[in-house]
Amino acid sequence: MTRPTVLVTFAAREAERAAIADALADIAEIRYWPDEKDSDRDAVLRASDVLLSYDPFTDLGSDAIGRLDNCRLLQCLTAGIDFLPLRSWPSHILVAYNAGAYAEPMAEHVLAMALSAAKRLPQEHEAMRGGKFNQFKPTKRLAGRVCGILGYGQTGREVARLMRHLDVRIQALNRSGRTEDPVDFIGTLDDLDRVLEASDILVITVALTRRTEGILDAARLERMKRDAILVNVARGEIVDQEALYRHLQAQPEFTACLEAWWVEPIRHGRFALDYPFLELPNVIASPHNSAITDGAIAGFVRRGAENARRLLVGEEPRFIAGEDDLLH
Amino acid sequence: MTRPTVLVTFAAREAERAAIADALADIAEIRYWPDEKDSDRDAVLRASDVLLSYDPFTDLGSDAIGRLDNCRLLQCLTAGIDFLPLRSWPSHILVAYNAGAYAEPMAEHVLAMALSAAKRLPQEHEAMRGGKFNQFKPTKRLAGRVCGILGYGQTGREVARLMRHLDVRIQALNRSGRTEDPVDFIGTLDDLDRVLEASDILVITVALTRRTEGILDAARLERMKRDAILVNVARGEIVDQEALYRHLQAQPEFTACLEAWWVEPIRHGRFALDYPFLELPNVIASPHNSAITDGAIAGFVRRGAENARRLLVGEEPRFIAGEDDLLH
Repeated sequence: MTRPTVLVTFAAREAERAAIADALADIAEIRYWPDEKDSDRDAVLRASDVLLSYDPFTDLGSDAIGRLDNCRLLQCLTAGIDFLPLRSWPSHILVAYNAGAYAEPMAEHVLAMALSAAKRLPQEHEAMRGGKFNQFKPTKRLAGRVCGILGYGQTGREVARLMRHLDVRIQALNRSGRTEDPVDFIGTLDDLDRVLEASDILVITVALTRRTEGILDAARLERMKRDAILVNVARGEIVDQEALYRHLQAQPEFTACLEAWWVEPIRHGRFALDYPFLELPNVIASPHNSAITDGAIAGFVRRGAENARRLLVGEEPRFIAGEDDLLH
Repeated sequence: MTRPTVLVTFAAREAERAAIADALADIAEIRYWPDEKDSDRDAVLRASDVLLSYDPFTDLGSDAIGRLDNCRLLQCLTAGIDFLPLRSWPSHILVAYNAGAYAEPMAEHVLAMALSAAKRLPQEHEAMRGGKFNQFKPTKRLAGRVCGILGYGQTGREVARLMRHLDVRIQALNRSGRTEDPVDFIGTLDDLDRVLEASDILVITVALTRRTEGILDAARLERMKRDAILVNVARGEIVDQEALYRHLQAQPEFTACLEAWWVEPIRHGRFALDYPFLELPNVIASPHNSAITDGAIAGFVRRGAENARRLLVGEEPRFIAGEDDLLH
């Protein structure tokens, strides 16, 4: 019996190849699409049982995708799959997303942004450069405050774990409205308004789907506390761009910590804004790099490869995308 | 028998007066120096058993201090007392400092600064303003790293508590070289060099005394990791100003988070720098405001008043300053 074939669609670096080999080399043949000769590519496509990929549409193209006759699983390496045109994906190939692969570094990044906002670090640094030493303008302690988490999945739960250590109370929303974790409140998207009203910090860790696209619109921002801290580490499109800009202009005590953007390089090939968010004093920006800590990428790849292994050894792979996970 | 008199030397606000009354009004007469008529001041000075003060030298002046015939305790409301000329303080009056009063808000501030540095928040925000979206330049996770704490007192221990929750390992220095806390290493100032070499983050929470003034000089900065994060929330003078500036210029991956300054308003009446730290990209600055969170000041005053109460009810007040606590 021949060993199954795992096709890696991207130009993996050494540490990533080592992680993939570690997870799969004992049971599968691992092929790298950029390394294949043109004359071998048709055979490799038809032999592949599993794809490991960030974006098979870009890496392979639709013609090659049509030749994945025996493929059973596309294991995506991103946590969000909203940017892939999965309606045109062959229906016989399951799609798994890399849920929570980025949870731990992202949660630290969320904490960094929320604390930076609470302590007004950028504003007071800038004030000092202008000669102002605002020693007695109060900043915020996080202890005792409420953190709302829109999307209480793997990343949201890790954010909550760190926040609880700072004596922050958690109000969370997930699909089931249930959790065993020690939260002050758990509900579903139907409870969004009450969580918005209660939150001193609101962290967005939800997937971008038809239900969440644009969900934080002008009316919902109005429900939030005047001096709330919004942290978006999910997808820009969950928040209405114009509404957020107007809100930040009208409410100088409100802070937006933006790590996820509306038009950004990895999904759109460029970074672009419709409004000059980066000129506002109450915005803290980062270039969607919350997951990218020293040595982290190989770990994410390994995690995806380990999920793919489940299929090859006859187990159920986790985080298989269903209708509710799609954006369009 | 007359009740003892507590003299508050500064213009306390309503919340602070309420805190003092709460701690002391049942057992003492509370007088406020700025409220006293000139004709009553001599009698008040001679009757005072305890002073509550940030700075009695400035508030009262040396002539009035000379009339504190019956005073037994100066309860300072700052944690650091290095800026008071205590060599000229009447030797019959004990001096207590407000140790650890600021520990909890300060520890959150330390975490905010250290995380902001680890995630390069100011640098990447600035890069984005310049059109650069550095999504794949790795930042640092704190988990698994080593935090050195120079001054493992009340504030240092609270910093350690929060850091441990982020899976950071602690190497600490205090006067005794002993602790019951779960640290990787505990030692005294004699062990400074080994802690400097091991630390990914070094937090300065030590008092400014003859032993610590200028202790972080050029040679000691050289011992630190090339990409270490230094957080000073104690006193500027513990670090050699010129040496730090030169080190930051030579080591762009090294970050200094400066909350305590060499010349600053509350101690010197103005903010001044010998070197343009605020122009360096690897400096994160805050205006010595780490303790000043919403509603915090009344809490610090209450804590000092409660320590003074110990004297008035016949207990030993805590945190009495000795020779080792003095700077000059």
